[in-house]
Amino acid sequence: MADRFAKPLQEPLFQRMVIVGVGLIGSSLLRAARQRNLVKTLVAADLSESVCTRVREIGIADEVFQDAKAAVVGADLVILCTPVGCIGAVAADIAPHLAAGAILSDVGSVKASVVTAVQPHLSDKIHFIPAHPVAGTEYSGPDAGFSTLFVDRWCILTPPEGADTEATQKLEQFWSEVGSNVEVMTPAHHDLVLAITSHVPHLIAYNIVGTAADLEEVTQSEVIKFSAGGFRDFTRIASSDPTMWRDIFLNNKDAVLEMLGRFNEDLAALQRMIRWGDGQGLFDLFTRTRAIRRSIVAQGQDAAAADFGRRPTPDSKPQ
Amino acid sequence: MADRFAKPLQEPLFQRMVIVGVGLIGSSLLRAARQRNLVKTLVAADLSESVCTRVREIGIADEVFQDAKAAVVGADLVILCTPVGCIGAVAADIAPHLAAGAILSDVGSVKASVVTAVQPHLSDKIHFIPAHPVAGTEYSGPDAGFSTLFVDRWCILTPPEGADTEATQKLEQFWSEVGSNVEVMTPAHHDLVLAITSHVPHLIAYNIVGTAADLEEVTQSEVIKFSAGGFRDFTRIASSDPTMWRDIFLNNKDAVLEMLGRFNEDLAALQRMIRWGDGQGLFDLFTRTRAIRRSIVAQGQDAAAADFGRRPTPDSKPQ
Repeated sequence: MADRFAKPLQEPLFQRMVIVGVGLIGSSLLRAARQRNLVKTLVAADLSESVCTRVREIGIADEVFQDAKAAVVGADLVILCTPVGCIGAVAADIAPHLAAGAILSDVGSVKASVVTAVQPHLSDKIHFIPAHPVAGTEYSGPDAGFSTLFVDRWCILTPPEGADTEATQKLEQFWSEVGSNVEVMTPAHHDLVLAITSHVPHLIAYNIVGTAADLEEVTQSEVIKFSAGGFRDFTRIASSDPTMWRDIFLNNKDAVLEMLGRFNEDLAALQRMIRWGDGQGLFDLFTRTRAIRRSIVAQGQDAAAADFGRRPTPDSKPQ
Repeated sequence: MADRFAKPLQEPLFQRMVIVGVGLIGSSLLRAARQRNLVKTLVAADLSESVCTRVREIGIADEVFQDAKAAVVGADLVILCTPVGCIGAVAADIAPHLAAGAILSDVGSVKASVVTAVQPHLSDKIHFIPAHPVAGTEYSGPDAGFSTLFVDRWCILTPPEGADTEATQKLEQFWSEVGSNVEVMTPAHHDLVLAITSHVPHLIAYNIVGTAADLEEVTQSEVIKFSAGGFRDFTRIASSDPTMWRDIFLNNKDAVLEMLGRFNEDLAALQRMIRWGDGQGLFDLFTRTRAIRRSIVAQGQDAAAADFGRRPTPDSKPQ
């Protein structure tokens, strides 16, 4: 794996790439693009003055702007990496300043609402190819990024009907060069897939952490002490960026409510098995879920190493 | 931390310890007890012939028995490490063979039902001190154990009213020597605390993996590919031992149903926020849950390192 990404390109794919919004994903893209020589001039734009200052300090971009309008002039690739909720406003702001033939993309975790918010602002000289790299950690901000974040992860592109083939292929190549596998699907299907693989899992993680925090009979200190029994894992997910996640739920409402409805039905059935002591039903479900885990590990989407809340040390592995 | 556990005891605490049921926890106890010289003679008992063979091969016990009755003769410490559902039957089987003054304990994840199942079989010459080490991984069996599993984890003791103080203190010392912090509470309170910190989290993890597996519109292959968006973490928990978890839910029914009721209420409120677009409500909850995560990391119950499904490498850390 490492070999495939060891060598930088001889010729950059793009002349000027602008990352608008320099958080975990944006800063990882800047790092990966530099390491692999994918772009001649790396440009960062962020509304926040403190983020701009930090990006200059860590030196992950060649140029840094607070004003995205000024940043995008002359760019052949602009990637919007802001929370989903403000993508439309950012697109409206920069659209008049985009060069003809430029590729505009994003990294938002929902796609249908992004298309609806962005498309109306664009002339037909701009190639709008939405994207979503399914990769991340629970951390946020320009310091949280790293160049290998996208390696062996999937990036989903949702090009609109009639999108320019060459532009789509070039963006595919870009994602492939930062290490991702690329898949193309419709925005609606993307939103359904992500509702079950990401959005509902986050929602129930946030929810159980909230439930635990509100108990009277069990103290918060007890919840924290004894979190190694499973709760701990949910708090990791439930520490993800609040603004980003608020926007995801507001912008993928239908798919999330649909998947949540199914989750609730299944949970009611499980609850009934517990109430009536249906051990066989519980055992059957608990056995079936093991198989899915095996496939995820086999396909490299998670490590097989046992997780018990510490990084492995020589002594912490099975003897 | 490592220093505290570097040196073996000069004199063992117990002469003969019998572990009944050699899985993840039982085999970790054997390894930790040997490493720290806590016990003179280490005895393993397991109904399964193949487990006994494996325990002999890896050499983690001095004596290995398929018949627990024969194993416990002359023991001053017997720890039942079987699934909770058969602890009562095992206790009935071995009780007549226990030496007067022996400490009998267990490691079950529920406590009230264990007390009800075990106590009636015991004479008043046996010191029954139930215990629950809140530690584990998603793996099972004698090969899954390791000597440091209990380091910095909490072990909860639930001695019955009027339990022998000396016996309780000796068992406390044993758990402290394998690295745990010890807390004493009633079985009923234990079951409530664990319902929210462990049992309900496992239940909803099993549930969402089941929901995802049953979808028609999203294929299983898509669920696996795009699991890095959050789903992945739930499959880890949902790959835990099915028998153990069936028994936990059947034996901690009341507390689990109570906590699940609260979880469902809170989830309904969250669902309503999404349906009605209450961004502020979502943001407030998502911010509140971050604080609990910080406490868990601060108190050493989880690592702060970003988790993105691979073990950290030099390049995968923020630059």
